[in-house]
Amino acid sequence: MLTKTTRINLVDQVILQIESLIESGEWEIGKKIPAEPILVVELNVSRNTLREGIRALCHAGVLTTKQGDGTYVSSGSTLGVAIQRRIQHSSLLDTLEVRNALEQEAARLSAERRTEQDLEKIRFYQGECSSYTKSRDMEGYVAADLKLHQTIVESTGNQMLIDLYAHITESIQESITIFLRKRFTEELPHDEHHQLVEAIAAQDAKEATANVQQFFDELKKVIKMEEM
Amino acid sequence: MLTKTTRINLVDQVILQIESLIESGEWEIGKKIPAEPILVVELNVSRNTLREGIRALCHAGVLTTKQGDGTYVSSGSTLGVAIQRRIQHSSLLDTLEVRNALEQEAARLSAERRTEQDLEKIRFYQGECSSYTKSRDMEGYVAADLKLHQTIVESTGNQMLIDLYAHITESIQESITIFLRKRFTEELPHDEHHQLVEAIAAQDAKEATANVQQFFDELKKVIKMEEM
Repeated sequence: MLTKTTRINLVDQVILQIESLIESGEWEIGKKIPAEPILVVELNVSRNTLREGIRALCHAGVLTTKQGDGTYVSSGSTLGVAIQRRIQHSSLLDTLEVRNALEQEAARLSAERRTEQDLEKIRFYQGECSSYTKSRDMEGYVAADLKLHQTIVESTGNQMLIDLYAHITESIQESITIFLRKRFTEELPHDEHHQLVEAIAAQDAKEATANVQQFFDELKKVIKMEEM
Repeated sequence: MLTKTTRINLVDQVILQIESLIESGEWEIGKKIPAEPILVVELNVSRNTLREGIRALCHAGVLTTKQGDGTYVSSGSTLGVAIQRRIQHSSLLDTLEVRNALEQEAARLSAERRTEQDLEKIRFYQGECSSYTKSRDMEGYVAADLKLHQTIVESTGNQMLIDLYAHITESIQESITIFLRKRFTEELPHDEHHQLVEAIAAQDAKEATANVQQFFDELKKVIKMEEM
């Protein structure tokens, strides 16, 4: 297993360069990356080194090569991909329990730390949710609900919590949408986030987490009924 | 970027084979992997395919090649490596908040689901902690404390929660040990896990989570004081 160290280092450099291009948004998720001859010049590496770096990122799930077409950005981070792979081997209930853990901590920390600006943003999406409920606009509601919860998590300022929550939510968004769609066929309360938002506004961490738990307990019941 | 699909598939197969050898414990973390000629025969692949697979796993952080020596297993899973990398860019407080989130959910679910066997195991490590406190055996205490919390998390039966908790704990074990070492210089209560274990025994989820939070709040205070 004698590999020249300099060679490996060059490949690692290519990987880091590509990862930072994706993280900065210069290379967007879902878009095709530039052709090989362009990258050889831009990243200033040999064709072999470039190919090896791209292959490693394909194995990591960050890039995807479509035969006869080109290479696409498939994910923004290796952590996101690793979580997604892990979730594929987990039950929806297990995944939701982990998400509930993060959401409770987010509610607690948001109650402690949210700024007036955060609160304004939270109230904005709360209003959007209410409007979409009234107009029975399911797609609008799902998007606003997602933004509302995301804003609460972001107001904690804990970037690791924000990332983990986003990766997990992304991986199960489809299942959550199915659940929300079912609820939408019932008569929904016009402002179901009222208690949670008021608890965060009043900086009442206990009430905020209790509220998340209550919502989650209801969700659990629905999932268990489906499984039966 | 024309790569033969069969080639990529063979490399992916090598990666999956190696990952399962590590997961099953056949290849232990920290140990050197078999030499290239042996692996070529065992995995039934060409030398080039094998090398590419190993390089990809090196980039993923699962294997590490030491020049002139050989290749070693450095981690049990890509999720573990991704979390570890993420934690390197996070503050200790951020990481502890995420761990607190998982620990609270674990305490809640353990109170709901622990079997009598789980409880016995939990009480065993609780006893170990007490003995080591009495005998002022710091190293013994750290190990027993780790096992106690691990056992509580495992009694939830949620494999994703168990894995995430283990990976995060592993990455910050050193910092936790430093904190425990400091506490050990003070007069510790002889059975500091008493309330938590009794709450889990009584299947009181509320009391169990409140207890985890209380311990975490104390820990936070210590960390904030250190930062000042």
